[in-house]
Amino acid sequence: MAAYCRDHALALRPHVKTHKSLRVASEQVARGAGGLTCATPRETEVMSEVTPDLLLHHPILGSKLQRVMSLPRSANVIVALDSAEAIDRLSDAAQAAERDVGVYVEVDLGMHRVGVQSTDDVIALARRSCERPRLRFAGVTFYPGHIREHVREQQDKFERLRSDLEALLDAMEVAGCPPPVLSGGSTPLAWRAHELPMVREVRPGTYVYNDRTTAEIGACEWDDCALTVLATVVSTAVPGQAVVDAGSKALGREPMRGVEGEGFGALLDHPEVTVQRMSEEHGVLDLSSTSWRPRVGEQVRIVPNHVCVVVHLNDAIHGVRGDEVVESWTVSARGRGAVPAGAGLLG
Amino acid sequence: MAAYCRDHALALRPHVKTHKSLRVASEQVARGAGGLTCATPRETEVMSEVTPDLLLHHPILGSKLQRVMSLPRSANVIVALDSAEAIDRLSDAAQAAERDVGVYVEVDLGMHRVGVQSTDDVIALARRSCERPRLRFAGVTFYPGHIREHVREQQDKFERLRSDLEALLDAMEVAGCPPPVLSGGSTPLAWRAHELPMVREVRPGTYVYNDRTTAEIGACEWDDCALTVLATVVSTAVPGQAVVDAGSKALGREPMRGVEGEGFGALLDHPEVTVQRMSEEHGVLDLSSTSWRPRVGEQVRIVPNHVCVVVHLNDAIHGVRGDEVVESWTVSARGRGAVPAGAGLLG
Repeated sequence: MAAYCRDHALALRPHVKTHKSLRVASEQVARGAGGLTCATPRETEVMSEVTPDLLLHHPILGSKLQRVMSLPRSANVIVALDSAEAIDRLSDAAQAAERDVGVYVEVDLGMHRVGVQSTDDVIALARRSCERPRLRFAGVTFYPGHIREHVREQQDKFERLRSDLEALLDAMEVAGCPPPVLSGGSTPLAWRAHELPMVREVRPGTYVYNDRTTAEIGACEWDDCALTVLATVVSTAVPGQAVVDAGSKALGREPMRGVEGEGFGALLDHPEVTVQRMSEEHGVLDLSSTSWRPRVGEQVRIVPNHVCVVVHLNDAIHGVRGDEVVESWTVSARGRGAVPAGAGLLG
Repeated sequence: MAAYCRDHALALRPHVKTHKSLRVASEQVARGAGGLTCATPRETEVMSEVTPDLLLHHPILGSKLQRVMSLPRSANVIVALDSAEAIDRLSDAAQAAERDVGVYVEVDLGMHRVGVQSTDDVIALARRSCERPRLRFAGVTFYPGHIREHVREQQDKFERLRSDLEALLDAMEVAGCPPPVLSGGSTPLAWRAHELPMVREVRPGTYVYNDRTTAEIGACEWDDCALTVLATVVSTAVPGQAVVDAGSKALGREPMRGVEGEGFGALLDHPEVTVQRMSEEHGVLDLSSTSWRPRVGEQVRIVPNHVCVVVHLNDAIHGVRGDEVVESWTVSARGRGAVPAGAGLLG
């Protein structure tokens, strides 16, 4: 990913939600990432040890404002948001903390999750962020999470995205507030960012480990799935299945996204075997498509459907070469971190 | 639950998976729980500080055996299992550690997850656990997780369960190995345990906090849902919805279990509003069934579908009276704990 971005003169700002690890973030910065993308105040706190250039791609309000304003003064923070309220509260907090903060205005280009709905609203929020004390309009951002399934077959959605972006930039130019940066995102689409020449920054996260979904949609190969959940077969008592000691508390109950696929993960060495059902600490392997018959005590490696959730469920990721554990990485940015004492949690 | 069990002379062995907290476990023991049920070695390690009477209701194999054998020698450990392999490995480990371990033989009475399939197999494993050094046959266990939806309307399944249990106990009596304990489980069924007089021990977990599923199936009232996820509305940009800062990494992607119900949680103060879609850090509230229109910055409390998974996603639970945080409980038994250095993880 670093080489791809270098080749296409794209700024790479990886999303740390996938790994939440200082060790992995350091490697990303060493390979040329100009900054990092975070989803929570906790992630910015931890990642401020690795880079001063932090994008919090989530509106912050309430007690979270206080946390972000307490980041080291060396940190150059940008916040992505989509409302006048979020701009005003951010300006209030920045003034109180006597620090400057950048603003990305988020626009909805088809995901229908967050993001303003019209070019006029983008321009209005861009202007508002210019006018409010201590804020700086740093760019426009979008998340193309609606373009997933077999990206290369989704040419219509992709063309629509390109024309929407062109129209948006033209309108902002005419309005006299061109965005300093247009920031895109997502691992599947990052590999096509060079076909959207107006996009100057990408925020892929999953690429660092990849997962079953990424492989199935064709954005990586099966062998590129770097993270697996090690599990042990604990029961073969019920016919037609084997039960492992990894359930929803280890794998997350995550379906395949934007592509067909049964189950909650597949075995690295037997991709036809999936985790068909789960309880909290039990995963039921469906043996109907395989002649493989595991014995109790046998270990398996499960490629999860969605790696970001698996990392969030764990405190450490163990680096393995062959059957040897060679290092362990703490998932430092997991969790919410310390809650401000008493006040501020509610109300 | 403690009062119910006392009234019916039932041994209460709460499942700690729901809270993973020493503080809550201490309260359970103080109110009469004779021991605790755990799902992972980590849970037994933490809970050994509260009680010596620990049931690990999950077969252990491989490196987990070593961890459980390292519990304080005062701990009276029982392991639930369903295979000859698990018995033999447990006996090996117990001999090496020079400690005695109890065995519950797990039987499948309709859940089809784990558990032996026939009375003959129960008897065979009971005898095997009697014969193997350092092991003690401590009882028979079952998990009636297949009886959930509106328990009182599931009389057929319940009657089948009762007759299966009667037949099993008769056969074990005839075979000369009656189980010292017959252990049942699950919060919904715990309240009917007195109708199964052969069951001498129950292992409910969820009752300690309850959740949306427990309320919907009628095993508690809505006001009995003690744990909520506090979230802030961060975006109202997309029409018809509001987005909060709690997604799959806070709520878990857990459906309702055994009962109809849309979404991944419902608002405590607006039960008609559910979390309809989620990303990792975004929850999309469906506003189609309400005239309530939240503003950006407003806080809401979400009753999750499945509380055990929510607890597992957090490091602390905050005790609140009104709008005041009065205490915080560490989720001490969350996670896997320290991994034995290098060796034993793989192979």
